[in-house]
Amino acid sequence: MINYPGGTPYKGKETKIRKSNKTKAELSISSANRGMSFEADINASNEYYRDKGICLITKRPTPINIVKVDYSKGAMITHAYFETQSTTDYNGVYKGKYIDFEAKNTKNKTSFPLSNITKHQIEHLKLVLKHGGIAFFIIQFESLEKIYLLDASYVIEFYEHGERKSIPLDCFKNNGVEIEKAYNPRLKYIEAIEKKIFLVLTKFS
Amino acid sequence: MINYPGGTPYKGKETKIRKSNKTKAELSISSANRGMSFEADINASNEYYRDKGICLITKRPTPINIVKVDYSKGAMITHAYFETQSTTDYNGVYKGKYIDFEAKNTKNKTSFPLSNITKHQIEHLKLVLKHGGIAFFIIQFESLEKIYLLDASYVIEFYEHGERKSIPLDCFKNNGVEIEKAYNPRLKYIEAIEKKIFLVLTKFS
Repeated sequence: MINYPGGTPYKGKETKIRKSNKTKAELSISSANRGMSFEADINASNEYYRDKGICLITKRPTPINIVKVDYSKGAMITHAYFETQSTTDYNGVYKGKYIDFEAKNTKNKTSFPLSNITKHQIEHLKLVLKHGGIAFFIIQFESLEKIYLLDASYVIEFYEHGERKSIPLDCFKNNGVEIEKAYNPRLKYIEAIEKKIFLVLTKFS
Repeated sequence: MINYPGGTPYKGKETKIRKSNKTKAELSISSANRGMSFEADINASNEYYRDKGICLITKRPTPINIVKVDYSKGAMITHAYFETQSTTDYNGVYKGKYIDFEAKNTKNKTSFPLSNITKHQIEHLKLVLKHGGIAFFIIQFESLEKIYLLDASYVIEFYEHGERKSIPLDCFKNNGVEIEKAYNPRLKYIEAIEKKIFLVLTKFS
């Protein structure tokens, strides 16, 4: 396990060393855990920001398509399916402004594949920008141990007009902001917004 | 069935006339349907506002606590429970501003009982206001066939310092705005915000 200066435990390398001993199912579970840990870091950061009175960002619950509910067992759901999120995972308010973002993890070292972004999410984020909201992606490059914040406008551009269905790492380096990891908040993404997104807003508004 | 000038079908009175012929379970279902129809009107209004480029408001999915998933059946959820919503039902962006609201239906004719508002929701809305967002309630008085929009600050005040655990109808009449019903949008609540909430914002900011 690597100990970051801020103290955030990160299991990336440990998982990698063990790789050869794992079955495909086990690898899939550890990858899911990695995603869960990234999500947990964002949720913990939101909690910190809320408690410190910095902003209010909440996670949208996963949409579920409920088929059957057993009321004899205290409204127990007995048959349901996960639905595809047509919006994003997080939204909220910061300094009166509307904030909306999606967080994704990738194992890729050179680019972020757009295959797990849906057309609905792109449409949603275009509308957020149109209505004057702040929209962005937080992308974790787990192999590089780096997390970037990138304004949604770049992602929309690559999604709609890019030749490849991925965003090169260089785009994140040049146009995004690297999110600093710390003890609390674990991911300083509001600080990253202040560095970059508000500059963009000032420039164009 | 009553036909409103705007064409919105409303089953309130019909349900009432039939009351004596219904079992308790049937009544409970028709009341649930009423709630569903009110929710459907808000969702349809949000769709209209989105399509017309007026604002982007989305409904938060109902939070579900998943106990068991059967992966042999394509990730079918076989055991889960409804969780209490700790935030509100709707949020989004209008003119760059963060919007957050809760919609409730009441059969009461003289006041809105606060019993179905949770402490978590009140805390959430206090934070929305603190961070400069626009927070309000849309309350349907189904027996009166009237729908009001009321700034969350009044609801918070009554919840925390009110002598009775309800908000008198007069408070809605004096401090809220009656939401006009129409064909499209079915509930003109953005127009109601413009009438009242933005005036309040201008006054205090």
